[in-house]
Order: sequence, then structure tokens, then C-alpha cells
Amino acid sequence: MTHKIAILGASGYTGAELVRLIATHPSMEIVALAANSKAGMAMADVFPHLRHLDLPDLVTIDQIDFDAIDLVFCGLPHATSQKVIRDLPKTVKVVDLSADFRLRDPEEYVKWYGGQHDALECQAEAVYGLTEFYREEIKSARLVAGTGCNAATGQYALRPLIEAGVIDLDQIILDLKCAVSGAGRSLKENLLHAELSEGYHAYAIGGTHRHLGEFDQEFSKIAGRPVKVQFTPHLIPANRGILATVYVQGDAQVIYDTLSKTYENEPFIQMLPFGQAPSTRHVRGSNFCHIGVTSDRIAGRAIVIAALDNLTKGSSGQALQNANLMLGEEETAGLMLAPCFP
Amino acid sequence: MTHKIAILGASGYTGAELVRLIATHPSMEIVALAANSKAGMAMADVFPHLRHLDLPDLVTIDQIDFDAIDLVFCGLPHATSQKVIRDLPKTVKVVDLSADFRLRDPEEYVKWYGGQHDALECQAEAVYGLTEFYREEIKSARLVAGTGCNAATGQYALRPLIEAGVIDLDQIILDLKCAVSGAGRSLKENLLHAELSEGYHAYAIGGTHRHLGEFDQEFSKIAGRPVKVQFTPHLIPANRGILATVYVQGDAQVIYDTLSKTYENEPFIQMLPFGQAPSTRHVRGSNFCHIGVTSDRIAGRAIVIAALDNLTKGSSGQALQNANLMLGEEETAGLMLAPCFP
Amino acid sequence: MTHKIAILGASGYTGAELVRLIATHPSMEIVALAANSKAGMAMADVFPHLRHLDLPDLVTIDQIDFDAIDLVFCGLPHATSQKVIRDLPKTVKVVDLSADFRLRDPEEYVKWYGGQHDALECQAEAVYGLTEFYREEIKSARLVAGTGCNAATGQYALRPLIEAGVIDLDQIILDLKCAVSGAGRSLKENLLHAELSEGYHAYAIGGTHRHLGEFDQEFSKIAGRPVKVQFTPHLIPANRGILATVYVQGDAQVIYDTLSKTYENEPFIQMLPFGQAPSTRHVRGSNFCHIGVTSDRIAGRAIVIAALDNLTKGSSGQALQNANLMLGEEETAGLMLAPCFP
Amino acid sequence: MTHKIAILGASGYTGAELVRLIATHPSMEIVALAANSKAGMAMADVFPHLRHLDLPDLVTIDQIDFDAIDLVFCGLPHATSQKVIRDLPKTVKVVDLSADFRLRDPEEYVKWYGGQHDALECQAEAVYGLTEFYREEIKSARLVAGTGCNAATGQYALRPLIEAGVIDLDQIILDLKCAVSGAGRSLKENLLHAELSEGYHAYAIGGTHRHLGEFDQEFSKIAGRPVKVQFTPHLIPANRGILATVYVQGDAQVIYDTLSKTYENEPFIQMLPFGQAPSTRHVRGSNFCHIGVTSDRIAGRAIVIAALDNLTKGSSGQALQNANLMLGEEETAGLMLAPCFP
Repeated sequence: MTHKIAILGASGYTGAELVRLIATHPSMEIVALAANSKAGMAMADVFPHLRHLDLPDLVTIDQIDFDAIDLVFCGLPHATSQKVIRDLPKTVKVVDLSADFRLRDPEEYVKWYGGQHDALECQAEAVYGLTEFYREEIKSARLVAGTGCNAATGQYALRPLIEAGVIDLDQIILDLKCAVSGAGRSLKENLLHAELSEGYHAYAIGGTHRHLGEFDQEFSKIAGRPVKVQFTPHLIPANRGILATVYVQGDAQVIYDTLSKTYENEPFIQMLPFGQAPSTRHVRGSNFCHIGVTSDRIAGRAIVIAALDNLTKGSSGQALQNANLMLGEEETAGLMLAPCFP
Repeated sequence: MTHKIAILGASGYTGAELVRLIATHPSMEIVALAANSKAGMAMADVFPHLRHLDLPDLVTIDQIDFDAIDLVFCGLPHATSQKVIRDLPKTVKVVDLSADFRLRDPEEYVKWYGGQHDALECQAEAVYGLTEFYREEIKSARLVAGTGCNAATGQYALRPLIEAGVIDLDQIILDLKCAVSGAGRSLKENLLHAELSEGYHAYAIGGTHRHLGEFDQEFSKIAGRPVKVQFTPHLIPANRGILATVYVQGDAQVIYDTLSKTYENEPFIQMLPFGQAPSTRHVRGSNFCHIGVTSDRIAGRAIVIAALDNLTKGSSGQALQNANLMLGEEETAGLMLAPCFP
Repeated sequence: MTHKIAILGASGYTGAELVRLIATHPSMEIVALAANSKAGMAMADVFPHLRHLDLPDLVTIDQIDFDAIDLVFCGLPHATSQKVIRDLPKTVKVVDLSADFRLRDPEEYVKWYGGQHDALECQAEAVYGLTEFYREEIKSARLVAGTGCNAATGQYALRPLIEAGVIDLDQIILDLKCAVSGAGRSLKENLLHAELSEGYHAYAIGGTHRHLGEFDQEFSKIAGRPVKVQFTPHLIPANRGILATVYVQGDAQVIYDTLSKTYENEPFIQMLPFGQAPSTRHVRGSNFCHIGVTSDRIAGRAIVIAALDNLTKGSSGQALQNANLMLGEEETAGLMLAPCFP
Repeated sequence: MTHKIAILGASGYTGAELVRLIATHPSMEIVALAANSKAGMAMADVFPHLRHLDLPDLVTIDQIDFDAIDLVFCGLPHATSQKVIRDLPKTVKVVDLSADFRLRDPEEYVKWYGGQHDALECQAEAVYGLTEFYREEIKSARLVAGTGCNAATGQYALRPLIEAGVIDLDQIILDLKCAVSGAGRSLKENLLHAELSEGYHAYAIGGTHRHLGEFDQEFSKIAGRPVKVQFTPHLIPANRGILATVYVQGDAQVIYDTLSKTYENEPFIQMLPFGQAPSTRHVRGSNFCHIGVTSDRIAGRAIVIAALDNLTKGSSGQALQNANLMLGEEETAGLMLAPCFP
């Protein structure tokens, strides 16, 4: 059986990544691609690397007949996404890649995103899309909220440790190194090649990055008490990748064993041998997440490092993984592409 | 039916690329990986990006039982390759990725590679591996010689034009821009990141690049008279890609039509609309070749630009395409991965 | 004696480059920096790398008292520049970095830039700013028109050869590889890091690049008859640099000797030993131009390759070199910085 | 008065950087360049970017007449350096760029560098070369030990804070992001462009990096009790730069004021406005260090970020700054070059 798929926001990087992945999926067919600002264009003109595929032309969202759609991937900007999803027929399954349905508490949404939510009933319904930890809920969900790409990386490193109680909850520091495609295809001076190439810097310093809302929500829920982590992202001159260096206080071997046990049957989470460090180059273009653990020379300290591709496992790959579950397909369908190195 | 595959020289980039592609191939199984200098190591230790695959450990060539192998990909260095292939059982099919069997005339081999050939009988048997132009011979070949990556790119732009007689054979200039993975994983000062990043230059200037042997052989054969092109490669700070800017004298529209007709049913060669220029970013990690044609402001001049990924269509992808034909499989099996952009 | 300097368009890359160079100039003082869109800001907020300098805040052009200025560098956009310069007091010397005064023939201006010129009397007065070839005129000029960066590179390779009559004037091909800072700090999708990094392509193909107007003007003037070159620029994933690979028909040794003789006393033009190829990395951040010549395997063909930094020798360094001459200073003042490698 | 300078190890990046800086120095003359493996070559053949300079050819160390030398910069590999410096005449001043004389305690040297020191008397004499904190000792020193580039960066962020007692000494985490030129010009697989470009990773994890010896020595000395920091370096796909993100516990405003006061008269250390983050691109190619401080959302936590160019302020620029002091010259001579951006 072939599922009919629509992608909204198809002219952005996450839209293109979805098309790339679905191109080799055995049971999905892309029947509609929407991008209001580029409606009428052929996808090959917006993304020439997809030229070999037989894809529908871009349309406006209004032009899509959603009764003929089984599942919608929604890659629209934050705030826009919630209004569009609110108005979709309830018979359509939705995987949202925006931030609009990630936070369960409407007040937290206001705090981090600075405006009232326009689709509170959908927000109540949405399932948080970190597949490995919400698998069962996702299988029966109608609306799944894709996680932040930084938020996913940090959670892969930390959730099992918080759950198992093997680290000090008040001494967690996440130093993230993010590639530039996470900022999307928007025209901003600091995303220009001449600005970014050969230079790097911290941004959203001091605990102001919105993905902290997700960390707070999820870590506090697992711990059963408020947990606040310190989180500083850095922009790195590379196109794909997130590397999370996580400083924790606890026994490194116990930490390693806890993570290894949690992920031993996960198809996409790969534990490196103890003491090895992952690299973004080894996950590029794939849905895999590599995790390494080492002890520090200071007793009682450990470093957990997680690497994934922000566009794949951090966004569109995660979305497809969730869609597979929602549609009753094999979870790994279309996602076993090996990383593209060098 | 699953074909048993061995890869010799598996610790190089072309070896890793073959593993990446075969990972999603429906009817090939990698049963042996050889790399004499790294025998005994797990492939995941040499190429951590392949960690998720269930691969045999690296062995020496001697340790392989070739009676259990259907096809060998040979990614060994030039000169070494010919001796190894000469001594393989004749029941094994071979796709060679080195330069050893590309030139049909032993004297040309001596001229370009500077030593006597050690496997002249194999050289006589080998079929030149430019799939689109040697498809029938490849289907029945035992030994196929992979082309040079630059040689492939230039030929895609020029062969149909020479064949059709629509350009001046004495005024052909190929200005190639090559990414660094084409130089392999060897330790050379000029391949260091600190040397290459943010800088670019011509190399093998003056008509000294060995791939000219292939151009001379193939173009002269097609034309029925000696054809010598001018060819200058440049090393560009990027990992994957070849962009061939080909300056020819002829009618641009006729040139475009000639190429379009030649490639209209080819699964991997994509003609862009007239007047558009391809980019390496749009073929990265894929087996596709994009070709654009435009007329110059000087009457009677045209520019043909071809872009492909040197590791895929220029090397390992081509090798797999040929192996598919030799084994009676679908030519495109394992090769329809969309390019990885951004 | 210290000359009072104003820079108009100080928030662009050429403006910043001028400040960088003038920072160590022994006899220039920057007394005004104008950038209408960022007036009121400190230069350190627009360009933090200039933080250590004691610079005036950005103002609008209207706010500058030009009676207190000896020389103006005008780094405004094309078309804007001509109006501003037209209205400056005639007592002020001007080095323009835009394209507005490069073409001597008003009709050629209309042809390449698509509109009537608004300052024809200034256009008549302007001296073409290719220092090495217009040195005497520049010394006594009030208004000097900076050349195009591509145009400068190609002319360094070709002017002496056309002048000496040692190459075929109808068979000249310039294949240029340009770094991205040449496109300025403007917000365009194709200048984003995620678009450009690890990819490269030709642009302005078919003889449509505006710098051809300069080539036509200068080469025809030298030759005493119309000369049209074929010119294809390519955008390369690097920040600084232009590499011009110039294909000519003539005797390589004669060509080399001609260039060597022309440039033997030039402080900034460096001839490499015969047969060597220059690299952009070896001129980065400097005012030097490296030129190499080699013969091709095809008799009667030669390749001339010139490398320079588009922001320095191709733009702001050239401008400062010209300003030095106009102000009676040592031509090399502030310009002997060694290239920044790696 | 012109000082006669020799550079040992002139074929490495730090040697080239010294030549670049000294090229515009008003009172230094390079009279000898040594590189045993490349003796006999012209410097322009080893580093073509220095082609415009009138430099002596490379020689072996034995060939240098040290009686004619005022000061030697020694850029030799660790362990080699100590033997060479031990045997130099004591009339020659020496700035060593290796690690050989950084550690005051011979046992610490053995611990971090794994062998007995061969010049203990010189080790006793050497002054630690962090200019801003050892200025007076350096002025009268004969032998100055250049600091590690990572060690310098971390100390600029932390020394005043430890001295002032405004942070918790047991909760200091340094997460460093280092560009690749810090690893030198050596031929290692992980330094190849194809390996490093578009990828990044942690290395020397767990507190094993040798620069920790310097941190331990200096921080403990200042604090008057043992201080151990947690330090994880990361290799970033860029050529120049170190960014140290330092996580500390203390009052951010007090921290900012402490740093601002310490550095208010320093010519090369620039404090950013409170709450701003520095970028490596804004110090590239210069001797400046930018420092930013911000408070975290978690009360009592602050982030100090320092950026410098590893080859300049982290190595050769620091060496020249020290040499200026040792020779009685202006400390900033030859070092006021503005950063090269973009």
C-alpha cells in the first residue's frame, strides 16, 4: 500500500531533505508540495538536486485537496504552522517540523515564543516526537510535534541518565556546536558564506535559546522535579551536523552502561566504544546518532558527546521515522542510508 | 539471488563509497573487505560512518577465498592493481577502479604511466567502463576498467559532439575544477586542510595529467583521426565534485540538441534547460551527472558544463553501475540515492 | 603631512578592507565614515574586527564636511556612486570603487549597465585605475575609477601580450574562479554558506558579465582594433581570491618573457618561475598578484594564470595604491602586508 | 638600531607566521632561516606567499653563525628544541615556541611529555611567555618559553578571576574550539581536507591534553592551592582560531568588571560590551584577543568566551611581542595589523 504524502513548506531545507529521503521509500508517494512564495515553480527549479525525481509542481496550501492525503509533513515557520495545522481536516495525520507543538504547557509556549498559541486544542493533542522515547504514543498519534534539533541531540545524551538517576541534576552543561543549515534558508547577514566560513562563535548565550523550553519540560518530567541545564550553542562553519559536548557529574562507566543498555536495540542510536569521541562527519546525511562517553581526569566527572545530522536525525529523518510509525510501516523504511563521507 | 562481493583496497575513499552504495543494494552482499595495511581491523575503526553496517573485518588479499566470490571491486593503487587482477581466478568478475586497464595501447600505457604493464593479457580483455557508451560490451565482460573521474566528466560533455561532428576538433579546451577526495586518502602536504581550505590552484598544467591518455584514446577512436584536447585541472576547496567547463566551437543549439538526444533515455545523465549551468552541490553524493549548454556572445562558440561527484558517478557509482550490468541486475540498483544538499 | 580621508559606503566589505589597510598607513587619517543605512552606529558594531581602532562613528553622507577632506574613497553601489560623486566639491580627490566611471564610452555604459549615466562630465574626467598601466595619469587625476576585480586579474595576464602582439587576438579564453566576497555583503540566497560551501558553479555564462565591458574597452584600445575575449566566471567556496586561467595561442616562452619584462620593476606583480602555477592562498589578504606561464602539450598554446585577492589588489588595495599616487605619497605605503597563509 | 634575527624551524606554520609579522617590523632583520629537512631551498619555494620578501635561503642550524645573531626564534618540535637551545651561545636571546620550557617543575614535564628533560639548567632559567602577566620578567629574560596556544586562550579568560577570587575554583570547565593550523604542517590523516572539512569532533578528551600542565601550573600558583580545570578541545573545520567557552560559577558582572580592569590598558586584549560573544573571524591574522562575558539564566553562573588567532596571539605574535620586550623595542612593534576579515 502506498501512502499519499503532502509536504508543506517544501522550499526550505527540511522540505528538500524530506523529498530526498522519501525518494527511496518503498511505500510513500509525494502527491503535493506546497510553498506559497514559490507556488507555480517546478521543484527542480527550487532544488536542482532533485531534478531526477518525478515530483508535482509547487502549489499554495489552498490548492491541496487534503481528502486525498494520508499524511502531511508541515515544514512551515513557527507561528504559521499552528494556524495551518489547526485548519486541516482531522482525518489527515500530521508531522509538524516547527516548534509550535513541542511545549505542553501553554504558558511555557508564551514564555519562549512570545505570543499566544492559536491552536491550543491541537497543542493538547500533539505527541512529542522524540521517537525512541515516545514510540508507543506516536504510533497512535494524529499529530506529532518534531523536536528541536539541538533539543534532540541533548536529550539523546541525557534522558537515560536523568531517568536512571546517575548524574547530578544541578550540574549539567551542554556545549553545542551546530552547523549552519539548522538556521534554514533565510537571508541573514550572519549566514553568508563570507561571514561564516573560517569563523565560529557562540550565539543565544546565557540560556536564551528556545530549545531550552524543551529541555526544561522533558528533563523535569523525567526527574519528577525541576531540572535546569546550562546550554550554549555555537555556530560552526559546516553545513550539516550537531555535536553536543555534555559535561556531567557522575561515574563515567555507570553512565556508559546506562546509555548502552537504553540504546542496545535502537536502530539509529550507536554507542561508540568507551573513551571514543564521535564526529559529525560520520553521521552526515544519515539518520544515525553516535554517542561517546569518557571519564575526565577529575574524579566524578564524565563527558558525554552526541553527534547527529541536524537535517536528518534532528529534523526530517526524525519526521519520517515518526511518519513510518503513524502509518504502520517499518520504522526504518527509507532511513537506512549510510552517511555520506567524505 | 544475492551476489557475493569482495572489495580490495577497502580502506580508501572509493572502497568506503562502494560500501556506502552497496549498503542499500537489494541483491549484493559484501563478504570480504581487503586492505593489506589495515588487515585485522574492523571497518568501523577505519570508517566510523559505516559503523551501523554488519561488515566483515578487513583482511589481506591472500586471505580471501575467491572461489566464493562472484565479483571483485578492485580499488588498489595503480600498478599494484594489475598484478593482483592478473592472479585472480578467471571465474571471478572484476571491476577495476585503478588506471591500469583504461588504455588499450600498451605503448600509451608506458607513455602516461611510466612503466611496462604487468598483465598485458588482461589489458587486452578489459572493457572501458564508461557505461553509457560501452553498455553492451560491459554486460558480457569479465573485466571492466573504471574510467578516470576527470576523463568521465569530459567525455560526457564531448563524446556525442565528436561523434556527431558538430564541433571543431582542434579547438577543444577543458577547464576542470576538481574536489579533493579525488586525490584519495594519501598523506600529502598539499591535501592538508590548512593548505587547501580557502585556496585553489591549477595543477598538472600544460597537458601532463594522465587522464589525457583516456581522452586521446577515446576521442581519436570516435573521430577516426587523432584528436588532442587542451586540459587543465584545478584543485578546489571542496570534498566532492568535478565541474568541467568545456569550451568548444560550434552551434550551441545544435550542440544542445545533440547531447539531449544522446542522453534522453539515460537514467543518470540529466540535461539542464538550455542556458543553465550545473553546480557540483546538486549532484553531491549521487550517481547523477548534470550537463548545461550555453552559447557565447562570440558567434560560433559554445560552453558545455558537466558536473558530477567524483567518488560516485566518477568512480564507485560507475563501478557499481557496471557491476549491475555484469551480474544481470537492474542497471540502477542501489544507485538512485538523491544528492545530499545542502 | 597627514591626509584627511573619508570613506563612503563604509559598511561594505571594500569599506572595511580600506580601513584595515589604512590602519597601518603612515600618513593617512580616517576622519569620516559614511553608511546611510547604518548611520549612528559605531564601526566596531558593524565590523567587530576593527574594534581596536580609534574610528569615527558612521554618519550619513550629508553629515560630512567635505571641505575638511583631502580624498574620498567611494565604495557605494553602482548607479548611486555617480550621483554622489557628481555633487562632491571639485576640490576633493576621489577614488571610486564602483563600476560607474570605468567605461569611457557612454554608450558602452548604457549597454552593460542598462541606464543613462547621471554624471557624464565626471565620466569624461575619470582615469581608469589599473595602476601599473595608468600610473602617470593617476598621479594628476582628481577622479580615479577603480577597475572590476575580475577585469584587473584578466588584464594583468593579457595586456602586455596584446600590446606586444605575441598572441592570437581572436582565440583568448578567460576561465575565472572567484571567491564569494566579490559579491559583497548583500543578502542573496546563493551567497549563503549552506548553498555555497562544498559546491561551485559557473555564473554569468555566455559572455554576459559586466566586466567584459572593461576587457573590450581596454584590449581594443591597446590592439588598435576590436578584441573580444571569451570569459566565464565561476563562484568558488572561498572568501577571498580570483584565479584567472587564461588560454592563449602563442609561444609560451615569448609570452613569459614579455610578461617578465613588463613587470620586472613592479612592486606588486610577481612572476613565478616558468612552468609554475599560482594559488589564491598565496596572495590572500595582500596587494600582490602572482602570475605563472606554461606551455601546453599542443604546440603553439600557452596558459597564463594570474592570482590576486579580489578585496585587496582587486579593489581596496588598488584604490589605496591609486590614492597614494594622487596624494604624492609612496605608491606602496600601507600596502606591503605579507599574505595571510594559512 | 636593527636587531639581527634567526628563525629555527622556519618551514613550519609558526615560522612562516613570524616572517609575515617581521616583514613590516621597523627594527628587525631576518638574517638566518633554518629548516634542516629543507636546507638549501629558497623560502619562496617552501612558502610562496613570502615570495615578495628578500629573505635568506634555508640552511641547517649548524650553518648559522650565532655570534652575529641578537635573537633566535625557535620553532622546532618539542624535545628537539631543548637540545638545540641548550647548545646555543649564552649571548643570544631566545624565544622558544615549543613546549619544552613551559613547565617549571621537571617532574611535571616528565608527566606530560613522557621523557627526561635534556636541558634542565635552561628550564630553570626560562620565563613563561604570557606577556601580559610576565612582562617585567620577560624584559630581562634571556630565554622565554612561548605558551601553548590553548593555554594562552584559557588563561586570558581565567587568570584575573582566579587572582581576584571571584569564581569557584573547583567548577571550571573550558570547552575549546581549535582551528587546524594549531596542529602544524605535519602529515596526518585526520588533518586532510577531505577528513576535516564539514566535520568536527572533540579530541584529547578526558583531561589528557598537554596544555593542562600549563593550566595546572599557572592556576595553582595564582590561587596558592591546587586548581584543576576540566578541559576538552575540539577540532573545527577552519584554519585559524581558538574559541574558549569557559563555564564558571560566580557573579557575571563582577567577573566582567574584574577582567575589564585587568585589561584596560592592554593593547591586545579587547573586552566586548557585557553580554556580547566574540568570534574567531574578528581576530584572524591579528595579535588581538577578544573576550566576552555573559550571565547564564542559572543564578550564579557565568560564561566567559575568549577568541584569538592560534598562530598569531597564540604563538608567533606572542613570540614577537616578547622579543620586542627583550630587545627594548616598543611592545606593539610589527603587531598592530588589523584582523583579516572576511
